[in-house]
Amino acid sequence: MEKGKKNGITDVAGVRVGHETLNEGSAQTGVTAILPHSGNLFKNKVTAASHIINGFGKTAGLIQLEELGVLETPILLTNTLAVGTCFDALVDHALEENGDIGRTTGTVNPVVGECNDMLLNDIRKRSVTIEHARQAIRNAAESFEEGSVGAGRGMMCYSLKGGIGSSSRVLSIEGTTNTIGILVVSNFGFMRDLNVHGSPVGQYWWGKTRTEEHEDKGSVMIIAATDVPMNHRQLKRVLKRSVTGLARTGSVISNGSGDIAIGFTTAETSQSVAEHHLDEAFRAIGEATEEAVLRSLQQASPVTGRDEFRPSTWKEMIETYPYPFS
Amino acid sequence: MEKGKKNGITDVAGVRVGHETLNEGSAQTGVTAILPHSGNLFKNKVTAASHIINGFGKTAGLIQLEELGVLETPILLTNTLAVGTCFDALVDHALEENGDIGRTTGTVNPVVGECNDMLLNDIRKRSVTIEHARQAIRNAAESFEEGSVGAGRGMMCYSLKGGIGSSSRVLSIEGTTNTIGILVVSNFGFMRDLNVHGSPVGQYWWGKTRTEEHEDKGSVMIIAATDVPMNHRQLKRVLKRSVTGLARTGSVISNGSGDIAIGFTTAETSQSVAEHHLDEAFRAIGEATEEAVLRSLQQASPVTGRDEFRPSTWKEMIETYPYPFS
Amino acid sequence: MEKGKKNGITDVAGVRVGHETLNEGSAQTGVTAILPHSGNLFKNKVTAASHIINGFGKTAGLIQLEELGVLETPILLTNTLAVGTCFDALVDHALEENGDIGRTTGTVNPVVGECNDMLLNDIRKRSVTIEHARQAIRNAAESFEEGSVGAGRGMMCYSLKGGIGSSSRVLSIEGTTNTIGILVVSNFGFMRDLNVHGSPVGQYWWGKTRTEEHEDKGSVMIIAATDVPMNHRQLKRVLKRSVTGLARTGSVISNGSGDIAIGFTTAETSQSVAEHHLDEAFRAIGEATEEAVLRSLQQASPVTGRDEFRPSTWKEMIETYPYPFS
Amino acid sequence: MEKGKKNGITDVAGVRVGHETLNEGSAQTGVTAILPHSGNLFKNKVTAASHIINGFGKTAGLIQLEELGVLETPILLTNTLAVGTCFDALVDHALEENGDIGRTTGTVNPVVGECNDMLLNDIRKRSVTIEHARQAIRNAAESFEEGSVGAGRGMMCYSLKGGIGSSSRVLSIEGTTNTIGILVVSNFGFMRDLNVHGSPVGQYWWGKTRTEEHEDKGSVMIIAATDVPMNHRQLKRVLKRSVTGLARTGSVISNGSGDIAIGFTTAETSQSVAEHHLDEAFRAIGEATEEAVLRSLQQASPVTGRDEFRPSTWKEMIETYPYPFS
Repeated sequence: MEKGKKNGITDVAGVRVGHETLNEGSAQTGVTAILPHSGNLFKNKVTAASHIINGFGKTAGLIQLEELGVLETPILLTNTLAVGTCFDALVDHALEENGDIGRTTGTVNPVVGECNDMLLNDIRKRSVTIEHARQAIRNAAESFEEGSVGAGRGMMCYSLKGGIGSSSRVLSIEGTTNTIGILVVSNFGFMRDLNVHGSPVGQYWWGKTRTEEHEDKGSVMIIAATDVPMNHRQLKRVLKRSVTGLARTGSVISNGSGDIAIGFTTAETSQSVAEHHLDEAFRAIGEATEEAVLRSLQQASPVTGRDEFRPSTWKEMIETYPYPFS
Repeated sequence: MEKGKKNGITDVAGVRVGHETLNEGSAQTGVTAILPHSGNLFKNKVTAASHIINGFGKTAGLIQLEELGVLETPILLTNTLAVGTCFDALVDHALEENGDIGRTTGTVNPVVGECNDMLLNDIRKRSVTIEHARQAIRNAAESFEEGSVGAGRGMMCYSLKGGIGSSSRVLSIEGTTNTIGILVVSNFGFMRDLNVHGSPVGQYWWGKTRTEEHEDKGSVMIIAATDVPMNHRQLKRVLKRSVTGLARTGSVISNGSGDIAIGFTTAETSQSVAEHHLDEAFRAIGEATEEAVLRSLQQASPVTGRDEFRPSTWKEMIETYPYPFS
Repeated sequence: MEKGKKNGITDVAGVRVGHETLNEGSAQTGVTAILPHSGNLFKNKVTAASHIINGFGKTAGLIQLEELGVLETPILLTNTLAVGTCFDALVDHALEENGDIGRTTGTVNPVVGECNDMLLNDIRKRSVTIEHARQAIRNAAESFEEGSVGAGRGMMCYSLKGGIGSSSRVLSIEGTTNTIGILVVSNFGFMRDLNVHGSPVGQYWWGKTRTEEHEDKGSVMIIAATDVPMNHRQLKRVLKRSVTGLARTGSVISNGSGDIAIGFTTAETSQSVAEHHLDEAFRAIGEATEEAVLRSLQQASPVTGRDEFRPSTWKEMIETYPYPFS
Repeated sequence: MEKGKKNGITDVAGVRVGHETLNEGSAQTGVTAILPHSGNLFKNKVTAASHIINGFGKTAGLIQLEELGVLETPILLTNTLAVGTCFDALVDHALEENGDIGRTTGTVNPVVGECNDMLLNDIRKRSVTIEHARQAIRNAAESFEEGSVGAGRGMMCYSLKGGIGSSSRVLSIEGTTNTIGILVVSNFGFMRDLNVHGSPVGQYWWGKTRTEEHEDKGSVMIIAATDVPMNHRQLKRVLKRSVTGLARTGSVISNGSGDIAIGFTTAETSQSVAEHHLDEAFRAIGEATEEAVLRSLQQASPVTGRDEFRPSTWKEMIETYPYPFS
């Protein structure tokens, strides 16, 4: 399928991404914010859904998101032990923008995703502050970096440096051009399993390096944005297909990997697409998720973290051990 | 069914409850901690499950609790906007007790339940601190107060002062005596709906007072403890029946009321009970939930909160407008 | 809340109900059909949802109904072992009306609910035929009987004769008058638990009669129809509240009772109601379910079934042991 | 991972598979039975679970299987419109073996999976009879055929002849040797998507043949057997990973493809494995599902069906257009 112009989640009009990266000794972590639109999200909620691929994770906000089918805060991604801090940052953000919260309109439902970056980041330090999280929101822009930035700073994927990756696909439904964009924080998998469009690259590299394989305590967060008009049920069906892309990169969805997909549509109409048109969206999310995971590897710059641990990057590997792609 | 000795959740051996209550002007809120046993919970996890009656709520930790079927931190209950703070407190608590977290054994899954106490408490103030939450854990004891304490400080139920209520039932399964204990934070419902063992008390009182009915933005958190040996699936079946008790007090499960049940068993055996023995547990959880909600009203002392708002208490009502129970 | 004109499920415009009753010795069973509209359902599907209160049941068709959010056949209710036969009848019905099935448009998803009527009906006989099921569909009309008819023929509820009951409530959403109608097949519960608007009538009757209580192997099927414009997610939220009515009649949702709610909306617009308007629907479904269960008792005529077993009817009890309603 | 001796689902001790194949003009369909053990299943139920990958399907029996976590009949697989017939056959089978059903022990929960074989089979004919289904059960043996047999007779996969495929993997958990076996009925996908261990074989073949791609109205049923001691929750976690194998063969999980996994364990102990040991089972089910799908193609013999339609077989394709595997 055709890619969007930027081949990223911000190909969906209005969507912005912001990072705040911590890079101080063993504090190698950060926050990434995804904003569905530039307005007041609490007042102009977007239709949203989620799908738990493997629930070994601490993501906040999905109970209400599933019940009401809407997202009313930016989505923040961070390290596992910073979920509380990011929850607080989203509350602060919402209270500032909305004087009616806690007075006349109830409360707000912060959505925070996470992966465990403990191999590179000293996660016990709790380095992420509310201010970091709020800065990630302020940094939100159409153009954003991938790789070892924001929430991706300390992440590892397939025993290599992982992090933020993004991709998009263009689809045409009944003559209308639509987009599905994906952003992942990748933090899962064993080198031996890495598969690149059918090539067992990880097996090859592992044969060369015998890289130590840590038990998979990782996770992957998959954020999907689209402008296809879908209701909650349909969006959830689309999110369920993200796993096809994940599997094609080699994931076996380990016990310890909390793999979770969260998605929203920016479409304002209540007229959702006919069910059989979803097939193109199903294909798109698989392709974009697969590519986003690969890009998270390919874009990752080297990071030296806790105990001077420094995993290899994709760029280093491909240079040292060029894979004989057919 | 027969009640336990204390008619409370701590009738289940080993279970303790602690409150930390904030009572300073418009800060009328708090934290309540439920501890399944006195040991290191992260090392000695208990089998657990949850059930979402209505998902308009921000409870943290249920994704992993459902995936793995275990609880590994105390359960904290608090106001909606203090979920992040309590998450942090549970992380602190777990890190202190477990040097291996974030080093060799992954992270920890904090479980925090909440209700929105904005009518009495100035929830925008964010008065609950990590220290408050940790003090609630330290305060845990077999004997504990009900009513306007801990997380129940600012709660309202059926347009009266609500809060913490607890109850228990004794059951006999194949000759063994077991217990199911319930603790609720009640914060839902309209006076007109209140029903006490079949008597439309709320209707009667509302006829007398014409109390203003605020839109239900409440919630109820139902915590169930038991020593019946059950696996995750069975425990979940039991939790689903808590709604029968709720309904008998008059609840219609409003849109805005995030009603959530979380339960655990302290039984250490892997030999779970035969399925048909669950019937007694089903009946017990309904009865104990019904009584716990009523006790949360009956035990509630008066609270004057934000904007000098002071809802009537059950005790005041029953004295002023004695209901002609038949 | 106000009742509809007929106080039945057919108060929702277009909905029809048909029974086919078997009354031959120990064959005391039948089929009940609920039709959302008079057109071709396969071509004009209606938005639908379901909710499993307790999954000890053999209801067919809910996997697809949940995935796609639509109903495309009449709903048939029958005894447990006749689900296959009714599945076949719905396939026959759909094939006859739609020459494209199995040629150009895939297949059809029959929806069949059931309760176990083995105490009165010789269920091992498999008396229900495809022709019976099809006749139930042909019998569909706006006006229909309640009690010991159709699928309700052999059912027992609260140790009395149960069966078909129906009720409806009128609600007003933003100036528009809407209706929610309920039809139940009641087949659950112990006499001692029966509660009538707060009065422990069952306890009283049981004290008089010491009626033998069979283990609950029953079930209740709750069919909800409405013309409120709702999407699948909203309809599911409404169905979840049916349990409040059930609980108020005394149900503890026994292990052996497969309690399942299936609902549809006949609204054709894709513009669903705002979420907070659901509160009226939540209240309505609770009230109508409660009344439908009670009516299933009150309307039931005596049935003598297998082994000459003949449970008492409500009418007999109320005459012999008039309850001192306050 | 290592394969079992027979590389099939019957590598799990006690499991047997039986086919009944219809091959008469446009009646190209059948039934396949999977039996967990040779005893009376209703009396000796096995722990079971299911996972809905995509719910566009009519599979019967999963509501109760999920609620109670057990399987109490053989699993029958067949064409979509024969689900009712197979339900009846399983009821017959259970009634014959168990005189107490419908008398003293309630009813029975038949489990029937299906795919839509309408392209090859005249599905409107309803050719499958109760006797066919019962014969499939009687035919059950340790050794069984794959390809165009039983329920697989009329199925198509990746625009080629599909059908029954099976595979197994051996795993070692704490010194004990265990097995996971898979049987699929494959009936989904477009030729262009077919991927064989990373090679885009389908793309290559489609380039050669421009085979007409029918809209995917297919499905895949995945039956998993194991002797690893697991509870319902764990077994469900394992089943969720079957999708990784599916995805690696090229599936995008189309809207119209009802992809459903059902599994059971023959282990009799209530002592289930520690959670982290599941990782090996996760990998095993992915691998075995991938191979079972490929074997369903590789083993399929040619079938000429309705309107003289005769899809190509894998064997024909690989001979005519040998793929240059690297």
